[in-house]
Amino acid sequence: MEMCLIMKADDHDGCVLVAPQNFAMVENGIYRSSFPKPEHFGFLTALNLRSIIYLCPEPYPEESLKFYEANNIKLFQFAIESQKDPPTPIPEDTVMAALRVLVDVRNHPILIHCKAGKHRTGCLVGCLRKVQNWCWSSVLEEYQKYAGLKCRQRDMKCIETFDTVSLRQCLLSIMYRYLGYGPNRKRLLYGEENVQTPKPQATKV
Amino acid sequence: MEMCLIMKADDHDGCVLVAPQNFAMVENGIYRSSFPKPEHFGFLTALNLRSIIYLCPEPYPEESLKFYEANNIKLFQFAIESQKDPPTPIPEDTVMAALRVLVDVRNHPILIHCKAGKHRTGCLVGCLRKVQNWCWSSVLEEYQKYAGLKCRQRDMKCIETFDTVSLRQCLLSIMYRYLGYGPNRKRLLYGEENVQTPKPQATKV
Repeated sequence: MEMCLIMKADDHDGCVLVAPQNFAMVENGIYRSSFPKPEHFGFLTALNLRSIIYLCPEPYPEESLKFYEANNIKLFQFAIESQKDPPTPIPEDTVMAALRVLVDVRNHPILIHCKAGKHRTGCLVGCLRKVQNWCWSSVLEEYQKYAGLKCRQRDMKCIETFDTVSLRQCLLSIMYRYLGYGPNRKRLLYGEENVQTPKPQATKV
Repeated sequence: MEMCLIMKADDHDGCVLVAPQNFAMVENGIYRSSFPKPEHFGFLTALNLRSIIYLCPEPYPEESLKFYEANNIKLFQFAIESQKDPPTPIPEDTVMAALRVLVDVRNHPILIHCKAGKHRTGCLVGCLRKVQNWCWSSVLEEYQKYAGLKCRQRDMKCIETFDTVSLRQCLLSIMYRYLGYGPNRKRLLYGEENVQTPKPQATKV
């Protein structure tokens, strides 16, 4: 959430922002939460979202879809079943597809959510942390904080076995192509959004 | 943490990043954690910190001070006593002073920490959320997540009674003076850092 939200708050005196449960910022332009309801639309507006990653197979409520459309928010759905008994593994290719959307800065600011914002969302964030080279105990601590201290075996397995190499390659190709390397990062648009692409610069890593 | 951390990770293969306990991102350029130890220095380096807000009265370890100096990290200490029996209130003016440092983007990226990253840090973050117009239940949920579900009465009182008006004024004056209003935010430097100040622009709120 941008600091200029404070000014918006001043403009709309008395309008308090209700965060979805289990809401948190993951990275610049990446948020996580439980399933947002209409009472959270004001909060989502303040986040200035460009996309949402939704990790459940169930269809989305019509009211929310209308809100997203009105606010130009793109919805990416990746159907991961909730844990059954006995638990089935989380499909690797679904996680990878969701992560490719997640790390693409052209989709930022982006919100990841499932139902409770605990397990499926925690898996995706855990995989992202692995890509960022976080050690296992740091990944686990964060997962547990949002899962309410309960670890699910299938989530641990999903994060542990996630192969970071191909995702890194995907990410690097996006960064080089659209962003350049270094501190002068820009907010990026999709090609069809009529952006003037800067000339590629020779960069040294 | 910038996404380009991923590239740094590639450069230093096998160097995993150990986060301080209770670490999280609060906002763009604002982080929170427990007291960072030498094993977390690699992680702190990846955050590219410009400042640290330390909320305990105890002096800082020499080794950490050296690391901060070497990495050009400014340390702001605000001495808030840990809870005693009976608990004494958290001094309002100390919280206000810490928040003025926290919201000044010239100090970002900034890390807030106390000892456990639970109560004193939670207070400061709670006050910031109030300034951002978060509703009370959202503020409380976040506080509890890091406090290990235990609420301290004196922390609740500190957040509840915190007066957001004067902080907003302080923040707005910084934003207008150095930043302008709107989406074209820039990373700011202190005056002595030889920055070319852009001409103030007429902005309409």
